[in-house]
Amino acid sequence: MTSLSVPCGLKSCRLVEDSMPFQLKVQSGEGDYPVLVEPGVLSRLPLLVQEHAPAHRYAVISDDRVAELHGERVSRDLSEAGMDSQLFTFPEGERNKTRKTWSILTDSMLEAGFGRDSVVVAVGGGVTGDLAGFVASTFMRGVPVVQVPTSLLAMIDASVGGKTGVDTSRGKNLVGAFHPPRLVAVDPEVIQTLPRCERAQGLVEAFKHGAICDDGYFACLERDLSKLLDASIDAILEAVVGSVQVKASVVSRDEREGGIRKILNFGHTLGHGIEAAAEFQVPHGTAVGLGMVLEARVGEELGVTEAGTAEHLAKTLHALEIGVGIPDRVRTKDVIGRLKHDKKAVGGVPELVLLSRIGEVSDEVGWTRPLPFEIAERVLNNASREA
Amino acid sequence: MTSLSVPCGLKSCRLVEDSMPFQLKVQSGEGDYPVLVEPGVLSRLPLLVQEHAPAHRYAVISDDRVAELHGERVSRDLSEAGMDSQLFTFPEGERNKTRKTWSILTDSMLEAGFGRDSVVVAVGGGVTGDLAGFVASTFMRGVPVVQVPTSLLAMIDASVGGKTGVDTSRGKNLVGAFHPPRLVAVDPEVIQTLPRCERAQGLVEAFKHGAICDDGYFACLERDLSKLLDASIDAILEAVVGSVQVKASVVSRDEREGGIRKILNFGHTLGHGIEAAAEFQVPHGTAVGLGMVLEARVGEELGVTEAGTAEHLAKTLHALEIGVGIPDRVRTKDVIGRLKHDKKAVGGVPELVLLSRIGEVSDEVGWTRPLPFEIAERVLNNASREA
Repeated sequence: MTSLSVPCGLKSCRLVEDSMPFQLKVQSGEGDYPVLVEPGVLSRLPLLVQEHAPAHRYAVISDDRVAELHGERVSRDLSEAGMDSQLFTFPEGERNKTRKTWSILTDSMLEAGFGRDSVVVAVGGGVTGDLAGFVASTFMRGVPVVQVPTSLLAMIDASVGGKTGVDTSRGKNLVGAFHPPRLVAVDPEVIQTLPRCERAQGLVEAFKHGAICDDGYFACLERDLSKLLDASIDAILEAVVGSVQVKASVVSRDEREGGIRKILNFGHTLGHGIEAAAEFQVPHGTAVGLGMVLEARVGEELGVTEAGTAEHLAKTLHALEIGVGIPDRVRTKDVIGRLKHDKKAVGGVPELVLLSRIGEVSDEVGWTRPLPFEIAERVLNNASREA
Repeated sequence: MTSLSVPCGLKSCRLVEDSMPFQLKVQSGEGDYPVLVEPGVLSRLPLLVQEHAPAHRYAVISDDRVAELHGERVSRDLSEAGMDSQLFTFPEGERNKTRKTWSILTDSMLEAGFGRDSVVVAVGGGVTGDLAGFVASTFMRGVPVVQVPTSLLAMIDASVGGKTGVDTSRGKNLVGAFHPPRLVAVDPEVIQTLPRCERAQGLVEAFKHGAICDDGYFACLERDLSKLLDASIDAILEAVVGSVQVKASVVSRDEREGGIRKILNFGHTLGHGIEAAAEFQVPHGTAVGLGMVLEARVGEELGVTEAGTAEHLAKTLHALEIGVGIPDRVRTKDVIGRLKHDKKAVGGVPELVLLSRIGEVSDEVGWTRPLPFEIAERVLNNASREA
């Protein structure tokens, strides 16, 4: 059996202090772009935006909650730097990540006279990045976007890689586009205002990054877990930089998810199935965490994944204060039913990413293999249920 | 003064007979794609689609009128060739090129279980190509599209170049994406069913192609004008091949309209202004024709365009049985007002493409220059009005 460790160049827990501000270039078919990680970078934003995304007008997009915390300030800072900036807001929450909100934001920009010589600045969590990114990608056939993530999940995962989109009643991100940003500016200081449970949700994706390609990074995260949950700025910086390195390394090699980018879907096939069967009443991080454990079990049953891996992942989730039981109302047959409609399914069969062990994805038969429905059903039936 | 003639390699009216079926490759950042022009090519479509856009499922999209004429047959042919195909229709007309129709088509595909392993086949005129192309570009962040244009305008212009989009109440194509097709298959035989006035509308863009970069092609079109209006298959073939060569040559060099692709907007700045001021009650070809004449006049006043060019263009339009008077209800100040909101405006000033003469765009100061409002106003005031 062969397996491949993506060389992320991390393998050490102490790189952060020596490398602030941290900057990294992501390769993209539409032009490479930098990701900056730097405490306090928000105050330098006007200059950075002018440098990386010069325009006649700037549309800052935030949800109404983040607008108060950061969006208003960003737009004011741009104006005070002599840039023509206007703030556009929408009601917070995944339930507003819709074509309707996208239409309203687009129409508001048109109403305000924004033209093709504009740039969108997305200030917020994953919902804002996806939604504002999709507005930018379709506004007059595409204007540039700058991503300013303010949630840990968005910093760690969503803001890098160019995926944008909205949900429909049939599922998440079913309508969207690849629209790489011109700049991702990450200010880890803003994380400190987030509630503990929201940080934990974001950290699930960080552990996923370690699990698929860097056991050293996984170990760092385990070691610093309580500091991360307590929002120690050093630990947060380490996680953001570590995850951005993994994500950038993967998407630079395969922007359109034709090959290796698929490994980022580890945990997401069964995770999305559970999320959909629970009608999205399970937090995304929890669903993905559960998916990682269950997909590791499928891998163990197939003899692909090292024994004990699923148990290791379950322990990590437990330490993150995230439940590893399937919600009681979610039935195996509903999950299996949803899996058959997975958007990444090929000929009706979804694909699965399997670890060989923590830190390595098996590429024995390519980066993914067709989901073995029978084994998945057995693993789901045997999984622990929520109390 | 320098000026540049785009080498389209045409310069001859007799290339067609020797080169059927005609095939040409368009260069694109997302992969080159072939344009095939061939009488009867529709009957070879299943094989061509399998070759250039293999997929698990095919969504054929047509408006309800073209569905009866061609869409149903295309979908049936694909099915009979063993491909999983389904026809999706929408009510015909530019007024249905909206986000609403786009949403309904997307939802119908989701409802029918289409996934990421799908291909859209757009069968119809410019509205269908734009709309179905936009559905494809945003369906699960993008699935391939095959363009099968059935109007002369779509064959000559819209199906090549990857522009997709929908209108909003604020204007045309304000929401959209660049989504190059995998294949453009043009069957000029289907044109013979079009009404004469619709063919004339399409021919305006053919004359535009000649005017911006090929005086030989312009002369061919003039010579064969009555045959073109009578839908002689030889003449139609010549026009389609000639225009596809110009269009492909230009968009291959500048897919995203950062430079030379702007020359395709000749006639479109003032044309769109008039179209918008007339609330889209003027046919698009008529508006563009009028725009070409008026923009040539602006060029003559500036000393950039050879004297007599506007008159030459006006005569050609007349021969095409297209009126060259501005609709009586359209006031100059309304046109000027709309121009300030042109989506291609830079800092509120729209750009203008100026000919040096028929067959050449002036590139004295780049491919475009800022619209001189005063001269435009004078030219609009002095233009003839509709009887």
